This record gives sequence, structure tokens and C-alpha cells, in this order.
Amino acid sequence: SGRLKSRRTKWNVHASEMSKRTFNPIRAIVDNMRIEPNPNKAMISLSIGDPTIFGNLPTDDKVLQAMKDAVDSGRFNGYASSIGYQSSRDAVANFYSCPESPLEAKDVILTSGCSQAIELAISVLANPGQNILIPRPGFSLYKTLAVSLGIEIKHYNLLPERSWEIDLKQMEALIDDKTACIIVFPECKFIALSSLSSNVPILSCGGLAKRWLVPGWRMGWILIHDRSNIFNREIRAGLVSLSQRILGPCTIVQGALENILNKTPEEFYDGTISFLKYNAELCFDALSMVPGLQPIRPCGAMYLMVGIDMDDFPEFESDIDFTERLIAEQSVFCLPATVTPFHKRNLELCLKTNSAVRLEEVF
Amino acid sequence: SGRLKSRRTKWNVHASEMSKRTFNPIRAIVDNMRIEPNPNKAMISLSIGDPTIFGNLPTDDKVLQAMKDAVDSGRFNGYASSIGYQSSRDAVANFYSCPESPLEAKDVILTSGCSQAIELAISVLANPGQNILIPRPGFSLYKTLAVSLGIEIKHYNLLPERSWEIDLKQMEALIDDKTACIIVFPECKFIALSSLSSNVPILSCGGLAKRWLVPGWRMGWILIHDRSNIFNREIRAGLVSLSQRILGPCTIVQGALENILNKTPEEFYDGTISFLKYNAELCFDALSMVPGLQPIRPCGAMYLMVGIDMDDFPEFESDIDFTERLIAEQSVFCLPATVTPFHKRNLELCLKTNSAVRLEEVF
Ligand SMILES: Cc1ncc(COP(=O)(O)O)c(C=O)c1O
Ligand SMILES: Cc1ncc(COP(=O)(O)O)c(C=O)c1O
Repeated sequence: SGRLKSRRTKWNVHASEMSKRTFNPIRAIVDNMRIEPNPNKAMISLSIGDPTIFGNLPTDDKVLQAMKDAVDSGRFNGYASSIGYQSSRDAVANFYSCPESPLEAKDVILTSGCSQAIELAISVLANPGQNILIPRPGFSLYKTLAVSLGIEIKHYNLLPERSWEIDLKQMEALIDDKTACIIVFPECKFIALSSLSSNVPILSCGGLAKRWLVPGWRMGWILIHDRSNIFNREIRAGLVSLSQRILGPCTIVQGALENILNKTPEEFYDGTISFLKYNAELCFDALSMVPGLQPIRPCGAMYLMVGIDMDDFPEFESDIDFTERLIAEQSVFCLPATVTPFHKRNLELCLKTNSAVRLEEVF
Repeated sequence: SGRLKSRRTKWNVHASEMSKRTFNPIRAIVDNMRIEPNPNKAMISLSIGDPTIFGNLPTDDKVLQAMKDAVDSGRFNGYASSIGYQSSRDAVANFYSCPESPLEAKDVILTSGCSQAIELAISVLANPGQNILIPRPGFSLYKTLAVSLGIEIKHYNLLPERSWEIDLKQMEALIDDKTACIIVFPECKFIALSSLSSNVPILSCGGLAKRWLVPGWRMGWILIHDRSNIFNREIRAGLVSLSQRILGPCTIVQGALENILNKTPEEFYDGTISFLKYNAELCFDALSMVPGLQPIRPCGAMYLMVGIDMDDFPEFESDIDFTERLIAEQSVFCLPATVTPFHKRNLELCLKTNSAVRLEEVF
């Protein structure tokens, strides 16, 4: 205990290397920006990918009713299986199954948000020291999770001039012996070491967040598409093991899932899509008229990216500078492009296209 | 693409080393046991630590009402901060704050179950190659999580003959330069490199599961007790970074938390405790009368351990064998001790003490 006492005088507790490697670029950049809106103009925040935040994209009443029914049933308070209730996995399998790609409950793993789905998929496929290919531009979480796990990332390019088609040549050149998997859009599918053929095994990650507009509920899933049984040997068992570490999503949301998927009316989905489309067009048209700005029409994303020709804006030093001035003068808060690195243009802004009333104010 | 084609003929996707290191002993042992109950006796399962499973320990109505109110409010569908809503963290801080150990919202991190709290606490304090000290007997998840992260574990002993006091001498002998933290009971507190003095910084992990009897809801928390500000330099920031990987618990449960903590009547907690106590006594008294069985009175646990003197049971080879025969003859399913290793006795059974009616059937 002499040893312990002498130590206690110089307490110096270091955080782990993993925690230091875990880096969320949105937080890191935004938290260090000068955010001082023009006091004469109400703030219009276009920087957060949360469809619920302005209250103009509420979820459907059937979704809320499904939750209350699950609470009232009293049947969903105990532990579920670590990969989720059989009945909830059945419901997801039925919802996404199609003749070309049939799914059963055993092909579904319920997770705490799409984020945990992505984490499990990367952790089961790749070891520290290996690499994974991720799209650029793309969602920053892939990099955050991979780097935090000690896995390297390489960016392949999406081509905006070809509706975000993959630059296959460039992608192929990146693949080496240490490439464990390739993350592809849309629907955030994971494709392992492949040229995207139809018998490639795929872990497809999704969730309630964007389509049902309840991102806070943390309900996500992995769909295992594997018609050639390539994942049977190790990957399925590996996913089950990993799911036992902290278990999956809240059982009330699991209990509500069958009704959420089956009772939400088609009009709800259609309404969201046309709303987003209307706003995307509005933004695109308005921004197109500004010399030096090159908006890129989104295909399915909730963000709209805008290329900026820096020659047309000599007074600005960087995208961060541009964003800060937009806040200071117009009280309009966009995300600087440093957050979602892109290969071609100098810099972009991300404009959230899901807040109609307020977007009309911007222009 | 020649390279890709030649590869595609021998698809051989291996699961990661992490997934192979992730080992849940309860699942691994129980899934390999012969579980064939006596067809003439109804199965009595005492093997699962889930208080809800027999329906005789329901949660309080206020808890259910709080959930429905959170759904109806429409305020808890979007993303919360990665460490949880400020208002929910305030509620937890108020609930657990006491003059000797004051807590504010900044000292609370909401997590997806106590399991994620334990995962974050271990991940922020220890690096692969370091070790942590965990109690024996104890909950198997500490080992599962640490080993999955590449962190070594060392067992210190709890002394049943002294009400589960820590064997401090033996514990101290285990501490070396690579010891990152010590996990201690009760209330699953984490204590870093210390002889348990009052100015040791502590991460205390808890959640709704056991006290409010809703383990499926996955609501947990870390309470940061750190009056000497030792965690300010790196650990707090590290916990925030790690919380951003997959975010925390369902926002509906977060939204309900304030009412759950403040409106649940005292009688509910008292009722649960006296129910558990009654059953623990019942088990203890009945088992004490059996020659060769040495039940250990639980202090706060939902399990009751039973030492077995193997000399008195020459016909059994192992604890697994004993458990299988108990199922085959009496349809009573206990957990064999291999699941929660113990230092002294040959072998134990874990009896869940939370199912009154059915326990009375056992004896
Ligand atoms: C492409 C993509 N994947 C995953 C996520 C995370 O989803 P969740 O909130 O369900 O974890 C998002 C959220 O913005 C996303 O845009
Ligand atoms: C001591 C201890 N810690 C943690 C847990 C896990 O709690 P949760 O279900 O909230 O993750 C349990 C559950 O059995 C437990 O007994």
C-alpha cells in the first residue's frame, strides 16, 4: 500500500486511445465556429440532419398509436433476444422481402439506430489494420466509426455529373489485400470485396429514423442479403456475438414495429417525399441564379450541396469563413464542406431541404 | 478486374477478431446444455435475470403513464444530444445527488442500458493490453466487454462469510502498472486505481432495468463522481466522444425519465424489495435443510448462489451435469456456476429469487 499511496499524490488519469481516435467532424468543426447570428434576423438553422426539428415534418399518428399500444400491452418490458424479438424481425423481413432478394426473420438483426447497424457491420467484417472503402461525399459516421475501431478508410468518388454514379475505375484502384468491405449508397448497403455483382453478400443497414421521421427512437436494423450462403460460416455468428455486448433497441419500439411498418399509410411516405422534393427544387432553382454558386440536385438525400467558386468570392478565405459570415449577416446556418469532404469542388455548403417555411424565408 | 474475378471464385469472408473474442458465457454454456424437462412437470426457469418474465413483478403504472405522455407530447421524436437531453440528465442528477456527493446534469451521461454505461466506462479508461480488476463472483458482462475490447481481466475475491466484503489484500496484490480501473459492487461503481478512498474519481453505472423493472427499455447512465476534478482533463471529453459513436437511449424513454424518477411512489420500491427478500428467505431456508447444499444469503442481488459439496453428490460429475439432471427430473432450470466463476466452493447454482409463486412450487 506504500506503492498505492505514493501514486495517489499524482492522479493522472488518461483517456483511452480509442476515445481519442473517436472524432465526430460535425461536432468538432461546428463547436469551434463563431456562431453569432444577426440580431435583427431570426436564426435559420440548416445544419442539422434532423427532420423533426422545425415541427413541419411530424411522424404519422399510426406510428405514435403503435407505441402507446406497445406500452399498454405490458408485453414488451423485459429483455428481448439480443438480435431482437422474433416477431419484430419477422415484420422487418416481410416489409423488405422481395422475390429477387427474399428475407426471413433470421436475416434481420435489430440495432440501436442505423448507427449501431453500421458499427456492427464494420466490426464484424474488418480488423484493425485493414481498410474499408467509403463514398465521397458521404455520411461522416462511417469514418468516425472505422477510425475509432483502428480500421483505415479510403475514399472512392461519387460523380455528381452522372447522378452520383460510382467512379468504378477509381474505386477498383483503391482495393488491395487489406480491403475488408465497401460501403455503398443508396440505402447504405455494405458490399464486401466485390464488383457489385448479384451474388455478393450484402449487409444492408437501415432504420426508422428518416422514413418514419423518428430518429430519436434509435431503431435500426441490418438486413443480411446472402443468397450464396457466404456469411453462414462466420459472419452471422459474429453478428450475434457482437449484438450481445450491449443488446439492441428499446423493446417498446420493437413491440410497436409490426404496426409501424404495416399500418403507416402510403400517403405518409408520399407526402414526405413530395415535401422534400419541393424544397429541394426551391433551393436548387434559387441557388442556381447566384453567380459562383453551383447547387447539386440531391437524389434522395436530406441535404443539398452547393459548390462555391472561390474566385467569385475573393473576400472569403475558406468554407468556414463563408459559413460564419452567412450566420453573422443573414442568420442562416449551413454546414461547411470540411465536414463532408468532396473531391472536386473547392468547397460546399450543406443545406437541409426539409424545412419548407423557413427555406422560403431564406430566398 | 481480372484480380477481382479470380477472387470471386473463392469467397471466404472471415469474421473479425473482435467478434470472435466476444464471448457471452451464459449463452455459450446454456446453448450447449441438454435442456429436456420432465414431461410430467411444468418447467420452472430460474436461469434468466429478467424480473418481468413471470408477470408477477410488473412495473408501476406511473412508469407506463410517463411513457405514453412522452409519446403524446410529440417533443421527443428527434435526435437528443449524444449524452442525452439536458432535462433528462437534470432529473437523474437530482434523483441521485446527495450532500456528500453532489451531482449536476454535466455529471450524467445517458446510455443504452447499464450495459452501454459499462462499455463506455471501460472503453474510456483502459487500452488494449491494460487490465481491469473485476469481482468474483460477479456479473459476466464485465469480462465479455473487456475481453472483446482486448483488455485483460483479473479477478479479485468477494468473501461470502463476510457479507461479500472485498478481499483487499488479494485485490492489492493483483494491481500492477497496467491496471486501468477496478470494478466494484454494489451499484456497479467503477473505481480507478485506488484503495477506495473518498477522493477517488468514480464512474457509477446504473439504469432503469432492475429498480423500475423494465430491462428491455435500455435506459442506463453513468454518474461521474469526481470531486477532485481528476476526470476533467481527459475522461469527460473522452466519454462525450465515445457517446457520439452510436448515440444513446431511445428519446421516448428519455422524455419519460423525469416523471419515472419523480412520480414512482415509494411503496413501489418497497414492494419490490420485500418481495425479493421474502423469496430469498424462502429459498435460503429450504435449501439450508438439504445436506450438502450451502445457500449464500444474497445482499441486494436478484440471484441466490448455492454451494454444492460434491462429496455429498457422488453420482454427478460437474455443475453442468447437476443442472441438466435437475431439469430432467424436476423441470427446474438453474444456472450452473461455470457461468459466474467463484473461487472457493466447488460449484454453485444461481436461483432467481423473483418468482414467488413458482418458487413455492419448487420446494
Ligand atoms: C446515411 C446515413 N446513415 C446513417 C445515419 C444514422 O442513422 P441513425 O440516426 O438511425 O443512427 C444517418 C443519419 O443522418 C445517415 O444520413
Ligand atoms: C450487475 C449488473 N450490471 C449490469 C446489468 C445489465 O443491465 P442493462 O440490462 O441495463 O444493460 C445487469 C443485468 O443483469 C447486472 O446484473
